[in-house]
Amino acid sequence: MIRVGIVGGSGYTGVELIRILSRHPEVALTVVTSRQYAGQRVDEVFPSLRAVCGLSFSSYDLAAMVEQVDLVFTALPHKTAIEVVAGFYEAGKKVIDLSADYRFSDAALYESWYQEHSRKDLLAKAVYGLPELYREDVCRARIVGNPGCYPTGAILALTPLFRQGLVDAKQPVIIDAKSGASGAGRTASTSTLYGEVNESFRAYKVGNHRHQPEIMEQVSRAAATSCRILFVPHLVPMNRGILSTIYVPLARKCQPDELMSLYDHCYGHEPFVRLLPEGILPSVAAVRGSNYCDLGLVLKQEEGLLVVLTAIDNLVKGAAGQAVQNMNLMLGFPESTALEMVPLAP
Amino acid sequence: MIRVGIVGGSGYTGVELIRILSRHPEVALTVVTSRQYAGQRVDEVFPSLRAVCGLSFSSYDLAAMVEQVDLVFTALPHKTAIEVVAGFYEAGKKVIDLSADYRFSDAALYESWYQEHSRKDLLAKAVYGLPELYREDVCRARIVGNPGCYPTGAILALTPLFRQGLVDAKQPVIIDAKSGASGAGRTASTSTLYGEVNESFRAYKVGNHRHQPEIMEQVSRAAATSCRILFVPHLVPMNRGILSTIYVPLARKCQPDELMSLYDHCYGHEPFVRLLPEGILPSVAAVRGSNYCDLGLVLKQEEGLLVVLTAIDNLVKGAAGQAVQNMNLMLGFPESTALEMVPLAP
Amino acid sequence: MIRVGIVGGSGYTGVELIRILSRHPEVALTVVTSRQYAGQRVDEVFPSLRAVCGLSFSSYDLAAMVEQVDLVFTALPHKTAIEVVAGFYEAGKKVIDLSADYRFSDAALYESWYQEHSRKDLLAKAVYGLPELYREDVCRARIVGNPGCYPTGAILALTPLFRQGLVDAKQPVIIDAKSGASGAGRTASTSTLYGEVNESFRAYKVGNHRHQPEIMEQVSRAAATSCRILFVPHLVPMNRGILSTIYVPLARKCQPDELMSLYDHCYGHEPFVRLLPEGILPSVAAVRGSNYCDLGLVLKQEEGLLVVLTAIDNLVKGAAGQAVQNMNLMLGFPESTALEMVPLAP
Amino acid sequence: MIRVGIVGGSGYTGVELIRILSRHPEVALTVVTSRQYAGQRVDEVFPSLRAVCGLSFSSYDLAAMVEQVDLVFTALPHKTAIEVVAGFYEAGKKVIDLSADYRFSDAALYESWYQEHSRKDLLAKAVYGLPELYREDVCRARIVGNPGCYPTGAILALTPLFRQGLVDAKQPVIIDAKSGASGAGRTASTSTLYGEVNESFRAYKVGNHRHQPEIMEQVSRAAATSCRILFVPHLVPMNRGILSTIYVPLARKCQPDELMSLYDHCYGHEPFVRLLPEGILPSVAAVRGSNYCDLGLVLKQEEGLLVVLTAIDNLVKGAAGQAVQNMNLMLGFPESTALEMVPLAP
Repeated sequence: MIRVGIVGGSGYTGVELIRILSRHPEVALTVVTSRQYAGQRVDEVFPSLRAVCGLSFSSYDLAAMVEQVDLVFTALPHKTAIEVVAGFYEAGKKVIDLSADYRFSDAALYESWYQEHSRKDLLAKAVYGLPELYREDVCRARIVGNPGCYPTGAILALTPLFRQGLVDAKQPVIIDAKSGASGAGRTASTSTLYGEVNESFRAYKVGNHRHQPEIMEQVSRAAATSCRILFVPHLVPMNRGILSTIYVPLARKCQPDELMSLYDHCYGHEPFVRLLPEGILPSVAAVRGSNYCDLGLVLKQEEGLLVVLTAIDNLVKGAAGQAVQNMNLMLGFPESTALEMVPLAP
Repeated sequence: MIRVGIVGGSGYTGVELIRILSRHPEVALTVVTSRQYAGQRVDEVFPSLRAVCGLSFSSYDLAAMVEQVDLVFTALPHKTAIEVVAGFYEAGKKVIDLSADYRFSDAALYESWYQEHSRKDLLAKAVYGLPELYREDVCRARIVGNPGCYPTGAILALTPLFRQGLVDAKQPVIIDAKSGASGAGRTASTSTLYGEVNESFRAYKVGNHRHQPEIMEQVSRAAATSCRILFVPHLVPMNRGILSTIYVPLARKCQPDELMSLYDHCYGHEPFVRLLPEGILPSVAAVRGSNYCDLGLVLKQEEGLLVVLTAIDNLVKGAAGQAVQNMNLMLGFPESTALEMVPLAP
Repeated sequence: MIRVGIVGGSGYTGVELIRILSRHPEVALTVVTSRQYAGQRVDEVFPSLRAVCGLSFSSYDLAAMVEQVDLVFTALPHKTAIEVVAGFYEAGKKVIDLSADYRFSDAALYESWYQEHSRKDLLAKAVYGLPELYREDVCRARIVGNPGCYPTGAILALTPLFRQGLVDAKQPVIIDAKSGASGAGRTASTSTLYGEVNESFRAYKVGNHRHQPEIMEQVSRAAATSCRILFVPHLVPMNRGILSTIYVPLARKCQPDELMSLYDHCYGHEPFVRLLPEGILPSVAAVRGSNYCDLGLVLKQEEGLLVVLTAIDNLVKGAAGQAVQNMNLMLGFPESTALEMVPLAP
Repeated sequence: MIRVGIVGGSGYTGVELIRILSRHPEVALTVVTSRQYAGQRVDEVFPSLRAVCGLSFSSYDLAAMVEQVDLVFTALPHKTAIEVVAGFYEAGKKVIDLSADYRFSDAALYESWYQEHSRKDLLAKAVYGLPELYREDVCRARIVGNPGCYPTGAILALTPLFRQGLVDAKQPVIIDAKSGASGAGRTASTSTLYGEVNESFRAYKVGNHRHQPEIMEQVSRAAATSCRILFVPHLVPMNRGILSTIYVPLARKCQPDELMSLYDHCYGHEPFVRLLPEGILPSVAAVRGSNYCDLGLVLKQEEGLLVVLTAIDNLVKGAAGQAVQNMNLMLGFPESTALEMVPLAP
């Protein structure tokens, strides 16, 4: 058994990682840290985990933890993961970081949206953990920057088009994305109270969200040129899930079959991308609790637009599930191990 | 007291009309018809109306009803209102039709999306009931086609820009709209069951919804030329409300102040349009239960895009409230009578 | 115009008071205080109130405020209202306190559940603000202790039975109550985050909630003897509303008609209690946004039990609406002024 | 591999059975019937099952189906399962019936709440499929009547007390139960539309629900005498889950430790009952998507009442999960096979 640990395990990503890892046949979860809950049983904080996880939360202690784990997930707030990841790396451990701290290749881009990056040396070694695009790199990685929730659905939607040069560079791609409230985390805040989210719907950070540069870096890499993207997130009154409606100006006239073939070529063999037949649109309900990304296409010839829609569960394919997918690759396990959960409907 | 009636009053638009009209000091609701519930008390079907509305639903009977009403609201399914409206019109009554049957100036456009229009003569007399655009026409109208819920928020957002020639005709305007489930009506259907809508989010009829031509006709009139629009509706797990996120390619570089002034010029004096200050975005929660349309702007200079966001309550400003606003104008009452409900939050 | 103010107006009770008072034809809201938001516009904190309330939040300053108001609502946390109420009282103002601090006649009972009461002299002068029971006292009161949300529905249900001696004292009355999340207030807390409340349902403080002694004091007064009550609250994933399912062991065999007549005698003339016909049960949806208390009865002869069910909107009849009802009585206005809002459905 | 089939698989119980069975390592789902959707792909009707279930719905045909299955789940409406079950039984197949048709020992009781039972001979052979109570009988059964959703949580709560004679027969046990909307099924109906369930809460069939006699028959068996039960169900705006708050008058004074020991003795070894420590109450969120029944106790000595609270997922432990648990026993597989799903939180 491989021993794994979680640093910062008391958020929604933490409980989801424990949910998935507790049923993984090849790993043993040996330690979960939390500053807030150190000393408390995990199943007191997360009653869903009673009879599932017998651990108590520990305080973070690098020296102690390197004795207990072979691989670590860091689920810390952005900016605080940099040095923690470095500590494990230098102790010879593999690390999957669920913050933004190791997602960017371009340190300057990271720094313009977050803060100074104190370990640019390691940033250069980290792999962006989207297996559908970088599977081989992930297999060899010692640090994986696990993608953001919004970027996962957007990048999977856009990469095939940008790689083929099918996107008209003269107009922006518009990503109108809608997320459930768990994306805002488990920290107490007036704006994410039940009474503020329920029965409402609103946009936020229009063109100003930190996931925009993350998406741009990835699709620019696919395009081998810089790209124009406008990313507009919205908050939906539901616990889980992201639907992204993506408006892509096409560089030339395309036929539906050609586009379907392109996506099928990219994702037809992927275990976690479900390409929907023409006329079927994705929905959040169809992926809830699972590691799937559902992807549908609508071509509007007369407007020169392709509408690509993707649905994921933000806590699974958008966070913990994808992290376990990366772990499976890094440790040489079958990629789907512990990730075959069927979506929960209704 | 002016006597008013409702034909087809057992849907969500019906109960909302009764809610508003029952507190109107100048009108008396004398008859509400329903094929399904004829003979039953209104407050048995809608328990919220106990002690508010003492009527029972009647069967529809034109001859009887013309004796009982001075003005009628028709809240029938599309296609079935054409002849009912005509009947009241010919009996000398004023009619506000909440279906699509009298919304279009271009009969051919209507017919290409709905069915043959058997009373094109009356279609030509009907006024599109968006008071912010056509107040004087509404005042004189005998038939008002009450706007669709999605079109209300979209047309209010777009008209100032199209009128000023600020929209780049070479790219489509994208209207990414999100509606609560009451927009789908009160007819039993598997797809609008609680378990199908709750905890999900999905797009539907991408670029293929009947509100698209309605929006296009109106903004083309504002633009005095044809327009390119892609309208994409989504279903949100909430009862009421529509948020429209509208991406407008600008014809030339604009400054935020110029745009704010333009909207302020159009709507600064309007009782039911609240133009939000820079940096404030609309939300459905802020308009729930009220006749307000909240409108916010975000200018993305680098992309040449203006993002206009509007929020309405689909059952009020998007249906029954706007209908009463039109009634007030048609009957010479102060426009806000019975419409000063403060939004319900939370 | 009577000038009114609100101390502690940035919670859900505050926004609801402003919603109702802003449409009251006889009063002018002149000041709203908030420690947290002092200096900010009310409509920035509560965007629903844009164009409705032009005030900014003030800091609390008794001396300044007594110059600005004739009557004040205190919507402070329990325990902090005692001295604030006293200050206004001593300055000759009428006060309606929405905390628990002036709800109890028995100071010792208050002190056993809350804290020491530093103004027992005023406690003795305060009137319990349930107009259906104490209308005449409220009319003459200078301090009103506005009832708790749960107690409102429970006491209205139970008082007729206890007054008539119909409750079997050998068994406890069980009040199984279910509340929407706004009852927990607007203060940030992990347990009331959207993700914690949504898609869940749970009991809390079983037989140990502070509303239990409040209910017991009132029904004991009605019974003219002590009573046995078990109060069990639950949290429902909805914004507003309380449904109370109350199991009453009957002291003797009763007929349905007798019970219906009893309730009709008590409440038939009440503007805000809707007694439902046999076979109709109350629902939260039917009272949302309104000041109604809906009340239904189910008699289970074979078990010697009467099930009384009441539904209220916890923020209206359970808080702000009832406070305005009390204000109307204290100021000599018609009791329903500004409270004729029709429930919002759906 | 054992071949299994589902008759009537297009409801919420059907999709949940397919979710669970598709990950069962020892069985192969070979046929799913649906009158409504015969000929359509299962994953078109239930998009969550794309890439999970490759079947199409068939028409029901006993002769064809007996060739395809070794065990069958019948998920038909009450009253229609009687003969279908008989057909499979007579063809030598094992059957797990998820309707009420084979749940009752007392045919007359069944007939007084449902209809005439045409196969009383088989009713006598059927086993009530609550493994925690009847495990050995289930192992040997050829027909299992899978318990109702409400009865599962109620019977697990009450059986230990009735078996020990701890319930005071002079007062009724009150079961105040609250269920998510999936319990009402997937058939289109106005009363279960999103707009009718969302933001509401109501009781229904007070003391008049068909699950009351089912509960009574089981607890009477445990008590070895007849019992007094009042069962009151409520509808909660959530997809899944039942919380039952059960008020038990005790026959004698009990200590908390004694009661905890009693429940621990009954359920301490059970894989799917989680007995919560004192002070911890169950919630629906903690069991969502899992086969767990969480059970908590609150003793109110002064009232002579024990409050027992249970939470289950109505579609899993309350239907499909329990059915698979029964199947595992009937087929000799480890009881937890395919049922180790960790609850989904949030």
